[in-house]
Amino acid sequence: MSKGAVNQIEAARKGEITEAMRAAAEREGVAPERIVEGVAGGTVVVPKNAGHDFRGLVAIGAGLRTKTNANIGTSPDVSDLDFELKKLEAARGAGVDAVMDLSTGGEIAAIRRAILEACDMPLGTVPIYQAAVEITAQGRAISSMTPDELFAAIEAHCREGVDFITVHCGVTRASIEALRREGRVLDVVSRGGAFLTDWILTNDAENPLYAEFDRLLEIAHRFDVTLSLGDGMRPGCLADATDRAQVVELITLGELQQRALEAGVQAMIEGPGHIPLDEVAENVRLEKALCHGAPFYVLGPIVTDVAPGYDHITSAIGGAIAAAAGADFLCYVTPAEHLRLPEVDDVREGVIAARIAAHAGDVAKGVAGAREWDDEMGRWRKARNWSKQIELALDPDRARAYHKASVSRFKDVCTMCSEFCSIRLLERRL
Amino acid sequence: MSKGAVNQIEAARKGEITEAMRAAAEREGVAPERIVEGVAGGTVVVPKNAGHDFRGLVAIGAGLRTKTNANIGTSPDVSDLDFELKKLEAARGAGVDAVMDLSTGGEIAAIRRAILEACDMPLGTVPIYQAAVEITAQGRAISSMTPDELFAAIEAHCREGVDFITVHCGVTRASIEALRREGRVLDVVSRGGAFLTDWILTNDAENPLYAEFDRLLEIAHRFDVTLSLGDGMRPGCLADATDRAQVVELITLGELQQRALEAGVQAMIEGPGHIPLDEVAENVRLEKALCHGAPFYVLGPIVTDVAPGYDHITSAIGGAIAAAAGADFLCYVTPAEHLRLPEVDDVREGVIAARIAAHAGDVAKGVAGAREWDDEMGRWRKARNWSKQIELALDPDRARAYHKASVSRFKDVCTMCSEFCSIRLLERRL
Repeated sequence: MSKGAVNQIEAARKGEITEAMRAAAEREGVAPERIVEGVAGGTVVVPKNAGHDFRGLVAIGAGLRTKTNANIGTSPDVSDLDFELKKLEAARGAGVDAVMDLSTGGEIAAIRRAILEACDMPLGTVPIYQAAVEITAQGRAISSMTPDELFAAIEAHCREGVDFITVHCGVTRASIEALRREGRVLDVVSRGGAFLTDWILTNDAENPLYAEFDRLLEIAHRFDVTLSLGDGMRPGCLADATDRAQVVELITLGELQQRALEAGVQAMIEGPGHIPLDEVAENVRLEKALCHGAPFYVLGPIVTDVAPGYDHITSAIGGAIAAAAGADFLCYVTPAEHLRLPEVDDVREGVIAARIAAHAGDVAKGVAGAREWDDEMGRWRKARNWSKQIELALDPDRARAYHKASVSRFKDVCTMCSEFCSIRLLERRL
Repeated sequence: MSKGAVNQIEAARKGEITEAMRAAAEREGVAPERIVEGVAGGTVVVPKNAGHDFRGLVAIGAGLRTKTNANIGTSPDVSDLDFELKKLEAARGAGVDAVMDLSTGGEIAAIRRAILEACDMPLGTVPIYQAAVEITAQGRAISSMTPDELFAAIEAHCREGVDFITVHCGVTRASIEALRREGRVLDVVSRGGAFLTDWILTNDAENPLYAEFDRLLEIAHRFDVTLSLGDGMRPGCLADATDRAQVVELITLGELQQRALEAGVQAMIEGPGHIPLDEVAENVRLEKALCHGAPFYVLGPIVTDVAPGYDHITSAIGGAIAAAAGADFLCYVTPAEHLRLPEVDDVREGVIAARIAAHAGDVAKGVAGAREWDDEMGRWRKARNWSKQIELALDPDRARAYHKASVSRFKDVCTMCSEFCSIRLLERRL
C-alpha cells in the first residue's frame, strides 16, 4: 500500500475506526464499532481502494442495510461512453449503493477511467474481461491468455482505483468435473466463468486465480481492494439450481475468503442466479454456513426463467427473499436481461426494483430503522397527506407523476376510490 | 336455481363431473376427478353463475395452478365504459384468469352488464358498492342502507349472471371491537369493510351479511354464485398486519365458509393486504388451518408500504411467496395503487406481475407442469434460439420488442455479451 494508506482489516483488528468505516457508519446510522467488528471478523466489507477517494462509502454485511449494485458497461455491439455515463447517472439517481463497470466493447480502459472519475460510490470491475477483450483484439483465442496477462489486468484495475473486483477463483478443475458428472441444461452462464472454463479445458491446467491465489491476495492487499469471489458456476436456469458444481464452488469460495481474511484482504461471496423460490432462503443459509458468515452478494436471484422483459420483477422476488434470509448485497437485474444490453431506463427500473427487494428484506430481517419508513408512510396515508406520501416514496418522481396524472374532484382523496375513500369515511370513527 | 341448472357442490357430492368442471380440468390439464373432490370438500371452487355461459372456466384451489384476477371498474372521478372495456381487453390479453368489476361511478349497472357481456371468463363484483352508490346518489348516508337494499343489490348481481361476489361478512361487532381494543395505524382500508364498519357503528347493530348469512346463502345457492368472503379487516400497512382484528375476521370467515359448503354454496376466503415478507407464508398457513383448506384469494400481499408507483412489484414479491405457501388466487395490484384509478397500461403491467408471482409460486409448490415451462426456456437459451425463447416468454410481445430494439452484429447472440456470450464460447465443450 502507498504510504499512509489504511488497510481496513488491519485497522479493524487493532480496533481502529478508519475514516471509511466512520463515514459508512454515519451514512447507515449505526455505531462504527459494529463495522469495525464486522470487518475484523470477515462478516462485513467496506469496499474502498486505498487510492480512491469518494463520498458514497458503504459497509456491506451482517446486521446492516441490504445494499444494491447496478451493472453498467459497454459490449462489442453497443459502445459509447456518454451512454454509459448516462446509465451511471440513472443508477445514482435511482439510489443505488454501488456500480460495476462490465465493459467489453470500445476503449474499455478509457471508459473505466471515465466512470471511475464520475462515480461517487464504490466501483467494481471484472478484470478478466479486459484481458479477454485485449487478447481477442489481437486475434488470439481467450484460452491463450497467460496468467501474467490476467494478473496484469487485475493489477491495472487495482492501481487505477477500482474498489472491488470480481475474480472467479472457484471455477476449478473440481467444480468443472462436478458439473460434467452431474450434467446441466445451461452449463456455465457467467462470462468470466466461461472464459476460465474454456481456459482450464483447453490448457488442461488449473485456474490461475485459484492456483496462484496468493498472488491475487498480494495485489489486492497492496491497494486494499475488496475481492468479490465470483460464482462462475451460478445456475443459468432453475433446472441447474443448487447443484453440485454450484456447491463445490461455494465451498472453495468459503475457503478462499478465509485465506483472504487472514491475509488482510476483504472479500465477499457472489451467489446465484436462477433459483426456484423455495430454494432461495436455503441458498443464503448455505452460503452463511459454508463461508462463515461472509457477506453474500447475489445476482437476482431470478425465481422463474419464463419472463424475459420482466426480470427486474423475477429478481425482485428472489432478491427480497434472499435479503430477508440474510443476503447482504443485491446486484440488480434489469428488464433487458436475457434480451439486450440495458438502456438508461432499464437501469433505472432495475435499481428501483432491487431497492424495493432490499428494503422488503430489511423489514423482514429486522434491520434497525427499516420498518420506521413503512410506518411513517402508513401514518401519512391515514392523514391523506399526499405531499408527504410522495416525498416519502422510494421514487418520489414516479409517485408524483402517477398521482398528478389523475386528480379527484373530491378533497384529499385519489381517483381510485374518490368520494368512497375508506379512510375518509371512517375518519375519527375508530 | 333455474330448471336444468347445475349446482357444482351438489353435483360434486354425487361424484358427478359437471360441464364446468370438465372444461376447467381440460384447460388446466388435470383429471376432472380432482376438481370434483375439491369442490365437494370445499378446497376448490369453480366460479360460474348457473345463468352465465362463458368459455374461460377455471377451478381455483388446492393442487391447482395459482390463478390471477384483475380489478377494473369506474370511480366517481373516472367513469367511461369504453375505458373499462379497454382495461378488460388489456387484462385478457395479458393472460388473466378472472376479472372483478368494482365500478362506483357512472351508470354502474349498465357498465357491469356491458362488462359481463364482453367478459369470457369468471366475473366478480362487490354488490355493496352498488347499494352504496345508489344511496349516495339519493343524498343519503351509506349507513342509512337497509338490509333489504343490500340484499336487493346482491340478488340483482346474481340474477344478472355475476360468477362470484365479494361479501364482507366478517366485519362484525367482534372484529371491530378487536380492532378498537388493539388499535391500528390505518384502521379499515377495504371500501366494503369501511361501509359496513360505518353501518355497524352508526346503527349499533350487527352486519346484515353476518346476521342474515342464511339469506345470503339462499340467494347464492339459487344462482350457484361463489362467495368471496371479503377481508374488510385487511391491514392497510405493515404495522397493522396479522393483528387481532384480521384474525378474528379470518376465524369468522372460516366458520361461514363451512356453513356455505353445507348449504351447497361455493366459497373462498379473501386475504391481505399489506404484510411484511416474513409473515406472508404464515398468513397463508393460518388461513389454511382456520378455514379448513378453503381457497385463499389474496390481494397482493404488498411487502412494503414505501413504493407507491411500483406496487405491482411489491405485490409480486408477496404474491409469489403467498402462492408458494399455498395461496390459490392472486388479485393483481397495479403500479397505480395508492395513487389513482389504474389506466390501461397499469392493468397490463399488473396482470403480468401477478402472473409472474403465480408461476414462481407454482414452481415452488410443485404444481404439475409448472417447472416444465422454465426447463423448456432453459433449453432454448442453451440453443440460442431466440424465436423460441420469445414465443415461450410469459409476454412474447415485450420480449420481442426488447430483443429487436438492439440487434447484435454477431450471430445468435444478444447485445448484452455479444461475441463474449458464455453459451456460445462453451458450445459442445462440456
